[in-house]
Amino acid sequence: MLRNQSPEIVVGRLPLYLRMLEFLKKEGKLITSSQELAERLGLSSAQIRKDLSYFGEFGKQGTGYNIEYLQRQLREILHVDRVWEMALIGAGDLGRALAHYQGFVPEGFRLEAIFDNAPKKIGAQVGDLLVLSMSELPRVVREKKIRVAILAVPADAAPAVAATLVELGICAILNYAPITLNVPSGVRVYHLDPVVGLQNMAYYL
Amino acid sequence: MLRNQSPEIVVGRLPLYLRMLEFLKKEGKLITSSQELAERLGLSSAQIRKDLSYFGEFGKQGTGYNIEYLQRQLREILHVDRVWEMALIGAGDLGRALAHYQGFVPEGFRLEAIFDNAPKKIGAQVGDLLVLSMSELPRVVREKKIRVAILAVPADAAPAVAATLVELGICAILNYAPITLNVPSGVRVYHLDPVVGLQNMAYYL
Repeated sequence: MLRNQSPEIVVGRLPLYLRMLEFLKKEGKLITSSQELAERLGLSSAQIRKDLSYFGEFGKQGTGYNIEYLQRQLREILHVDRVWEMALIGAGDLGRALAHYQGFVPEGFRLEAIFDNAPKKIGAQVGDLLVLSMSELPRVVREKKIRVAILAVPADAAPAVAATLVELGICAILNYAPITLNVPSGVRVYHLDPVVGLQNMAYYL
Repeated sequence: MLRNQSPEIVVGRLPLYLRMLEFLKKEGKLITSSQELAERLGLSSAQIRKDLSYFGEFGKQGTGYNIEYLQRQLREILHVDRVWEMALIGAGDLGRALAHYQGFVPEGFRLEAIFDNAPKKIGAQVGDLLVLSMSELPRVVREKKIRVAILAVPADAAPAVAATLVELGICAILNYAPITLNVPSGVRVYHLDPVVGLQNMAYYL
Protein backbone atom coordinates (compact mmCIF):
# COMPACT_ATOMS: atom_id res chain seq x y z
CA MET A 1 0.00 0.00 0.00
CA LEU A 2 2.80 2.40 0.87
CA ARG A 3 4.34 1.85 -2.52
CA ASN A 4 1.19 3.17 -4.22
CA GLN A 5 1.05 6.37 -2.20
CA SER A 6 1.74 9.42 -4.26
CA PRO A 7 4.26 11.89 -2.87
CA GLU A 8 1.34 14.35 -2.95
CA ILE A 9 -0.33 12.40 -0.16
CA VAL A 10 2.95 12.29 1.75
CA VAL A 11 3.42 16.05 1.33
CA GLY A 12 -0.11 16.50 2.65
CA ARG A 13 0.90 14.84 5.91
CA LEU A 14 4.04 16.91 6.53
CA PRO A 15 2.08 19.91 7.91
CA LEU A 16 0.40 17.53 10.37
CA TYR A 17 3.79 16.30 11.56
CA LEU A 18 5.04 19.88 11.88
CA ARG A 19 1.93 20.86 13.83
CA MET A 20 2.28 17.91 16.21
CA LEU A 21 5.98 18.61 16.77
CA GLU A 22 5.09 22.15 17.85
CA PHE A 23 2.47 20.77 20.20
CA LEU A 24 4.94 18.29 21.73
CA LYS A 25 7.48 21.09 22.13
CA LYS A 26 4.89 23.15 24.01
CA GLU A 27 4.45 20.15 26.30
CA GLY A 28 8.14 20.53 27.13
CA LYS A 29 9.47 17.67 25.03
CA LEU A 30 12.82 17.89 23.20
CA ILE A 31 12.87 14.44 21.60
CA THR A 32 10.11 12.39 20.04
CA SER A 33 9.83 9.11 18.16
CA SER A 34 7.91 7.78 15.20
CA GLN A 35 5.96 5.72 17.76
CA GLU A 36 4.92 8.78 19.76
CA LEU A 37 4.02 10.76 16.63
CA ALA A 38 2.08 7.79 15.31
CA GLU A 39 0.08 7.43 18.50
CA ARG A 40 -0.73 11.13 18.66
CA LEU A 41 -1.69 11.31 14.99
CA GLY A 42 -3.56 8.03 14.68
CA LEU A 43 -1.11 6.70 12.07
CA SER A 44 1.38 3.83 12.08
CA SER A 45 5.00 4.49 13.03
CA ALA A 46 6.09 2.67 9.85
CA GLN A 47 4.11 5.17 7.78
CA ILE A 48 5.73 8.12 9.52
CA ARG A 49 9.24 6.71 9.02
CA LYS A 50 8.44 5.94 5.38
CA ASP A 51 6.97 9.42 4.81
CA LEU A 52 10.02 11.13 6.29
CA SER A 53 12.41 8.88 4.36
CA TYR A 54 11.16 10.47 1.12
CA PHE A 55 12.90 13.64 2.20
CA GLY A 56 16.02 12.51 4.06
CA GLU A 57 17.35 11.04 7.29
CA PHE A 58 16.07 12.87 10.34
CA GLY A 59 16.77 10.57 13.26
CA LYS A 60 18.89 7.64 14.36
CA GLN A 61 17.47 4.20 15.08
CA GLY A 62 16.81 4.05 18.79
CA THR A 63 17.41 7.70 19.66
CA GLY A 64 14.30 9.24 18.12
CA TYR A 65 13.94 12.65 16.53
CA ASN A 66 15.24 15.91 17.90
CA ILE A 67 12.07 18.00 17.74
CA GLU A 68 13.68 21.37 16.95
CA TYR A 69 15.84 19.83 14.25
CA LEU A 70 12.99 17.94 12.60
CA GLN A 71 10.82 21.08 12.71
CA ARG A 72 13.55 23.06 11.00
CA GLN A 73 13.98 20.40 8.33
CA LEU A 74 10.25 20.09 7.67
CA ARG A 75 9.87 23.87 7.47
CA GLU A 76 12.62 23.94 4.86
CA ILE A 77 11.06 21.11 2.87
CA LEU A 78 7.65 22.81 2.94
CA HIS A 79 9.18 26.22 2.10
CA VAL A 80 7.81 27.77 5.26
CA ASP A 81 11.24 28.66 6.65
CA ARG A 82 10.32 32.12 5.29
CA VAL A 83 7.16 34.25 5.42
CA TRP A 84 4.71 34.26 2.52
CA GLU A 85 2.67 37.45 2.20
CA MET A 86 -1.00 36.79 1.58
CA ALA A 87 -3.95 38.71 0.18
CA LEU A 88 -7.32 37.97 1.75
CA ILE A 89 -10.36 38.53 -0.45
CA GLY A 90 -13.62 39.02 1.44
CA ALA A 91 -14.21 41.04 4.58
CA GLY A 92 -17.37 39.30 5.75
CA ASP A 93 -17.67 37.41 9.05
CA LEU A 94 -15.23 34.72 7.97
CA GLY A 95 -12.78 37.18 6.41
CA ARG A 96 -12.72 39.21 9.60
CA ALA A 97 -12.21 36.08 11.73
CA LEU A 98 -9.27 35.11 9.49
CA ALA A 99 -7.82 38.61 9.74
CA HIS A 100 -7.81 38.25 13.52
CA TYR A 101 -6.29 34.78 13.47
CA GLN A 102 -2.92 34.70 15.21
CA GLY A 103 -1.93 31.30 13.84
CA PHE A 104 -0.56 32.30 10.44
CA VAL A 105 2.65 34.16 11.23
CA PRO A 106 4.36 31.46 13.32
CA GLU A 107 3.70 29.02 10.48
CA GLY A 108 5.14 31.01 7.58
CA PHE A 109 2.28 33.20 6.38
CA ARG A 110 1.23 36.79 6.95
CA LEU A 111 -1.87 38.65 5.83
CA GLU A 112 -0.62 41.64 3.95
CA ALA A 113 -3.94 43.11 2.81
CA ILE A 114 -7.67 42.46 2.86
CA PHE A 115 -9.99 43.34 -0.01
CA ASP A 116 -13.73 43.62 -0.56
CA ASN A 117 -15.95 45.25 -3.15
CA ALA A 118 -18.74 46.36 -0.81
CA PRO A 119 -18.48 50.17 -0.42
CA LYS A 120 -19.51 50.02 3.23
CA LYS A 121 -16.73 47.55 4.05
CA ILE A 122 -13.96 49.40 2.23
CA GLY A 123 -11.91 51.48 4.64
CA ALA A 124 -13.06 49.56 7.70
CA GLN A 125 -10.41 48.52 10.20
CA VAL A 126 -10.05 44.74 10.60
CA GLY A 127 -7.35 43.74 13.02
CA ASP A 128 -4.25 45.64 11.91
CA LEU A 129 -5.49 46.14 8.36
CA LEU A 130 -7.81 48.48 6.51
CA VAL A 131 -10.15 46.86 3.99
CA LEU A 132 -9.09 47.91 0.49
CA SER A 133 -11.18 48.11 -2.65
CA MET A 134 -10.82 45.24 -5.10
CA SER A 135 -9.60 47.80 -7.60
CA GLU A 136 -6.39 48.06 -5.58
CA LEU A 137 -5.72 44.33 -5.74
CA PRO A 138 -3.50 44.41 -8.88
CA ARG A 139 -1.30 47.17 -7.47
CA VAL A 140 -0.88 45.56 -4.06
CA VAL A 141 -0.19 42.08 -5.45
CA ARG A 142 2.40 43.53 -7.80
CA GLU A 143 4.08 45.80 -5.26
CA LYS A 144 4.20 43.21 -2.48
CA LYS A 145 4.97 40.32 -4.85
CA ILE A 146 2.11 38.35 -3.32
CA ARG A 147 1.72 34.77 -4.54
CA VAL A 148 -0.71 33.37 -1.99
CA ALA A 149 -4.35 34.36 -1.51
CA ILE A 150 -7.23 33.40 0.76
CA LEU A 151 -10.65 33.46 -0.84
CA ALA A 152 -13.50 34.16 1.59
CA VAL A 153 -16.23 35.38 -0.76
CA PRO A 154 -19.64 33.86 -1.61
CA ALA A 155 -19.71 30.92 -4.03
CA ASP A 156 -21.18 32.88 -6.93
CA ALA A 157 -18.44 35.52 -6.77
CA ALA A 158 -15.59 33.03 -6.30
CA PRO A 159 -14.91 31.87 -9.90
CA ALA A 160 -14.44 35.42 -11.20
CA VAL A 161 -12.28 36.46 -8.24
CA ALA A 162 -10.19 33.30 -8.62
CA ALA A 163 -9.70 34.06 -12.32
CA THR A 164 -8.50 37.56 -11.41
CA LEU A 165 -6.10 36.17 -8.82
CA VAL A 166 -4.64 33.72 -11.32
CA GLU A 167 -4.23 36.51 -13.88
CA LEU A 168 -2.30 38.52 -11.30
CA GLY A 169 0.13 35.66 -10.78
CA ILE A 170 -1.26 34.18 -7.56
CA CYS A 171 -0.32 30.50 -7.55
CA ALA A 172 -1.79 29.23 -4.27
CA ILE A 173 -5.39 29.85 -3.25
CA LEU A 174 -6.87 28.82 0.08
CA ASN A 175 -10.53 28.64 -0.88
CA TYR A 176 -13.30 29.03 1.69
CA ALA A 177 -15.97 29.69 -0.94
CA PRO A 178 -18.26 26.66 -1.17
CA ILE A 179 -17.49 25.84 -4.80
CA THR A 180 -14.85 23.81 -6.61
CA LEU A 181 -12.54 26.23 -8.41
CA ASN A 182 -11.09 25.27 -11.74
CA VAL A 183 -7.66 26.81 -12.21
CA PRO A 184 -4.86 26.35 -14.74
CA SER A 185 -2.19 23.77 -13.97
CA GLY A 186 0.58 25.39 -11.98
CA VAL A 187 -1.94 27.04 -9.67
CA ARG A 188 -2.92 25.16 -6.53
CA VAL A 189 -6.21 25.42 -4.67
CA TYR A 190 -6.86 24.02 -1.20
CA HIS A 191 -10.56 23.84 -0.41
CA LEU A 192 -11.97 24.31 3.10
CA ASP A 193 -15.74 23.87 3.16
CA PRO A 194 -17.39 22.92 6.46
CA VAL A 195 -20.45 21.51 4.66
CA VAL A 196 -18.30 19.12 2.63
CA GLY A 197 -16.80 17.85 5.88
CA LEU A 198 -20.15 17.55 7.63
CA GLN A 199 -21.82 15.77 4.71
CA ASN A 200 -18.87 13.44 4.42
CA MET A 201 -19.23 12.48 8.10
CA ALA A 202 -23.02 12.25 7.88
CA TYR A 203 -22.66 9.35 5.46
CA TYR A 204 -21.31 7.28 8.36
CA LEU A 205 -23.92 8.38 10.91
CA MET B 1 -6.39 3.04 -10.38
CA LEU B 2 -10.13 3.23 -9.95
CA ARG B 3 -10.19 -0.31 -8.65
CA ASN B 4 -7.87 0.64 -5.80
CA GLN B 5 -9.95 3.60 -4.63
CA SER B 6 -11.51 3.01 -1.29
CA PRO B 7 -15.20 3.80 -1.02
CA GLU B 8 -14.11 6.34 1.62
CA ILE B 9 -12.50 8.44 -1.12
CA VAL B 10 -15.60 8.07 -3.26
CA VAL B 11 -17.84 9.12 -0.37
CA GLY B 12 -15.60 12.14 0.08
CA ARG B 13 -16.40 13.30 -3.44
CA LEU B 14 -20.19 13.01 -3.14
CA PRO B 15 -20.54 16.34 -1.28
CA LEU B 16 -18.59 17.99 -4.11
CA TYR B 17 -21.01 16.56 -6.66
CA LEU B 18 -23.96 17.69 -4.57
CA ARG B 19 -22.51 21.19 -4.23
CA MET B 20 -21.86 21.48 -7.98
CA LEU B 21 -25.37 20.25 -8.81
CA GLU B 22 -26.80 23.03 -6.64
CA PHE B 23 -24.59 25.53 -8.42
CA LEU B 24 -25.69 24.29 -11.86
CA LYS B 25 -29.32 24.45 -10.74
CA LYS B 26 -28.83 28.08 -9.71
CA GLU B 27 -27.50 28.70 -13.22
CA GLY B 28 -30.91 27.56 -14.47
CA LYS B 29 -29.91 24.07 -15.60
CA LEU B 30 -32.25 21.08 -15.17
CA ILE B 31 -30.05 18.39 -16.72
CA THR B 32 -26.32 17.78 -16.52
CA SER B 33 -23.87 15.13 -17.67
CA SER B 34 -20.81 13.39 -16.30
CA GLN B 35 -18.85 15.42 -18.89
CA GLU B 36 -20.15 18.75 -17.59
CA LEU B 37 -19.63 17.76 -13.95
CA ALA B 38 -16.14 16.53 -14.78
CA GLU B 39 -15.19 19.76 -16.49
CA ARG B 40 -16.52 21.90 -13.66
CA LEU B 41 -14.87 19.77 -10.99
CA GLY B 42 -11.55 19.12 -12.71
CA LEU B 43 -12.14 15.35 -12.71
CA SER B 44 -12.65 12.81 -15.49
CA SER B 45 -16.16 11.91 -16.56
CA ALA B 46 -15.25 8.21 -16.23
CA GLN B 47 -14.42 8.80 -12.58
CA ILE B 48 -17.71 10.50 -11.92
CA ARG B 49 -19.68 7.70 -13.58
CA LYS B 50 -17.67 5.11 -11.68
CA ASP B 51 -18.15 6.97 -8.35
CA LEU B 52 -21.91 7.20 -8.84
CA SER B 53 -22.14 3.56 -9.95
CA TYR B 54 -21.11 2.51 -6.43
CA PHE B 55 -24.47 3.76 -5.24
CA GLY B 56 -26.90 3.05 -8.08
CA GLU B 57 -28.08 4.05 -11.54
CA PHE B 58 -28.81 7.77 -11.72
CA GLY B 59 -28.94 8.55 -15.44
CA LYS B 60 -29.42 6.95 -18.81
CA GLN B 61 -26.66 6.72 -21.41
CA GLY B 62 -27.03 9.75 -23.66
CA THR B 63 -29.67 11.64 -21.68
CA GLY B 64 -27.54 12.81 -18.77
CA TYR B 65 -28.61 13.32 -15.17
CA ASN B 66 -31.75 15.05 -13.98
CA ILE B 67 -30.22 17.50 -11.51
CA GLU B 68 -33.08 17.54 -8.99
CA TYR B 69 -33.31 13.76 -9.00
CA LEU B 70 -29.58 13.23 -8.59
CA GLN B 71 -29.49 15.79 -5.77
CA ARG B 72 -32.30 13.97 -3.99
CA GLN B 73 -30.53 10.64 -4.37
CA LEU B 74 -27.17 11.97 -3.19
CA ARG B 75 -28.80 13.65 -0.19
CA GLU B 76 -30.36 10.33 0.75
CA ILE B 77 -27.07 8.46 0.33
CA LEU B 78 -25.23 11.03 2.46
CA HIS B 79 -28.03 11.10 5.08
CA VAL B 80 -28.56 14.80 4.60
CA ASP B 81 -32.17 14.43 3.47
CA ARG B 82 -32.87 15.40 7.07
CA VAL B 83 -31.49 18.07 9.44
CA TRP B 84 -28.74 17.22 11.91
CA GLU B 85 -28.66 19.42 15.00
CA MET B 86 -25.18 20.61 15.89
CA ALA B 87 -23.43 21.96 18.97
CA LEU B 88 -20.74 24.56 18.35
CA ILE B 89 -17.99 24.77 20.96
CA GLY B 90 -16.13 28.06 20.99
CA ALA B 91 -17.56 31.57 20.69
CA GLY B 92 -14.40 33.33 19.51
CA ASP B 93 -14.05 35.09 16.16
CA LEU B 94 -14.33 31.86 14.20
CA GLY B 95 -17.17 30.48 16.32
CA ARG B 96 -19.14 33.68 15.81
CA ALA B 97 -18.49 33.63 12.04
CA LEU B 98 -19.75 30.03 11.94
CA ALA B 99 -22.83 30.96 13.96
CA HIS B 100 -23.68 33.58 11.32
CA TYR B 101 -23.06 31.22 8.40
CA GLN B 102 -26.22 30.73 6.36
CA GLY B 103 -24.90 27.74 4.45
CA PHE B 104 -25.56 24.95 6.94
CA VAL B 105 -29.36 24.65 6.97
CA PRO B 106 -29.88 24.11 3.22
CA GLU B 107 -27.32 21.31 3.39
CA GLY B 108 -28.74 19.31 6.26
CA PHE B 109 -27.25 20.87 9.38
CA ARG B 110 -28.44 23.38 11.94
CA LEU B 111 -26.60 24.99 14.83
CA GLU B 112 -28.69 24.24 17.87
CA ALA B 113 -26.46 25.78 20.54
CA ILE B 114 -23.12 27.48 21.04
CA PHE B 115 -20.92 26.98 24.09
CA ASP B 116 -17.92 28.64 25.65
CA ASN B 117 -16.28 28.60 29.05
CA ALA B 118 -15.23 32.27 29.19
CA PRO B 119 -17.53 34.07 31.66
CA LYS B 120 -17.60 37.23 29.54
CA LYS B 121 -18.79 35.31 26.48
CA ILE B 122 -21.50 33.31 28.22
CA GLY B 123 -24.90 34.92 27.71
CA ALA B 124 -23.78 36.94 24.68
CA GLN B 125 -26.06 36.92 21.64
CA VAL B 126 -24.45 35.42 18.54
CA GLY B 127 -26.78 35.34 15.57
CA ASP B 128 -29.98 33.71 16.83
CA LEU B 129 -28.27 31.99 19.72
CA LEU B 130 -27.13 32.84 23.23
CA VAL B 131 -23.73 31.51 24.23
CA LEU B 132 -24.19 28.85 26.90
CA SER B 133 -21.77 27.72 29.57
CA MET B 134 -19.89 24.48 28.89
CA SER B 135 -21.57 23.13 32.02
CA GLU B 136 -24.83 23.06 30.07
CA LEU B 137 -23.38 20.96 27.24
CA PRO B 138 -24.37 17.54 28.66
CA ARG B 139 -27.98 18.60 29.23
CA VAL B 140 -28.38 20.20 25.78
CA VAL B 141 -26.74 17.31 23.93
CA ARG B 142 -28.98 14.85 25.76
CA GLU B 143 -32.21 16.82 25.38
CA LYS B 144 -31.69 17.68 21.73
CA LYS B 145 -30.17 14.29 20.88
CA ILE B 146 -27.21 16.07 19.24
CA ARG B 147 -24.69 13.81 17.49
CA VAL B 148 -22.68 16.37 15.52
CA ALA B 149 -20.38 19.06 16.94
CA ILE B 150 -18.16 21.80 15.59
CA LEU B 151 -15.00 22.45 17.55
CA ALA B 152 -13.70 26.02 17.30
CA VAL B 153 -11.50 26.26 20.38
CA PRO B 154 -7.73 26.75 20.74
CA ALA B 155 -5.49 23.74 20.10
CA ASP B 156 -4.55 23.24 23.74
CA ALA B 157 -8.19 23.05 24.84
CA ALA B 158 -9.32 20.83 21.97
CA PRO B 159 -8.29 17.33 23.17
CA ALA B 160 -10.18 17.67 26.46
CA VAL B 161 -13.27 19.16 24.80
CA ALA B 162 -13.22 16.42 22.16
CA ALA B 163 -13.01 13.77 24.89
CA THR B 164 -16.06 15.33 26.57
CA LEU B 165 -17.96 15.38 23.28
CA VAL B 166 -17.19 11.71 22.66
CA GLU B 167 -18.29 10.82 26.19
CA LEU B 168 -21.60 12.57 25.55
CA GLY B 169 -22.20 10.46 22.47
CA ILE B 170 -21.16 12.90 19.76
CA CYS B 171 -20.00 10.84 16.80
CA ALA B 172 -19.03 13.46 14.22
CA ILE B 173 -16.71 16.37 15.01
CA LEU B 174 -15.86 19.13 12.56
CA ASN B 175 -12.55 20.26 14.02
CA TYR B 176 -11.22 23.77 13.42
CA ALA B 177 -8.69 23.53 16.25
CA PRO B 178 -5.19 23.25 14.80
CA ILE B 179 -4.41 19.83 16.26
CA THR B 180 -4.99 16.23 15.19
CA LEU B 181 -7.64 14.75 17.47
CA ASN B 182 -7.41 11.12 18.45
CA VAL B 183 -10.88 9.66 18.95
CA PRO B 184 -12.22 6.14 19.45
CA SER B 185 -13.24 4.19 16.36
CA GLY B 186 -16.85 4.90 15.55
CA VAL B 187 -16.31 8.64 16.02
CA ARG B 188 -15.37 10.64 12.93
CA VAL B 189 -13.34 13.84 12.85
CA TYR B 190 -13.02 16.12 9.84
CA HIS B 191 -10.14 18.56 10.19
CA LEU B 192 -10.19 22.07 8.73
CA ASP B 193 -6.94 23.92 9.36
CA PRO B 194 -5.97 26.79 7.07
CA VAL B 195 -2.28 26.47 7.97
CA VAL B 196 -2.23 22.81 6.91
CA GLY B 197 -3.65 23.86 3.54
CA LEU B 198 -1.25 26.77 3.14
CA GLN B 199 1.82 24.73 4.09
CA ASN B 200 0.73 21.96 1.77
CA MET B 201 0.53 24.43 -1.13
CA ALA B 202 3.78 26.16 -0.14
CA TYR B 203 5.65 22.95 -0.86
CA TYR B 204 4.86 23.48 -4.55
CA LEU B 205 5.72 27.19 -4.62
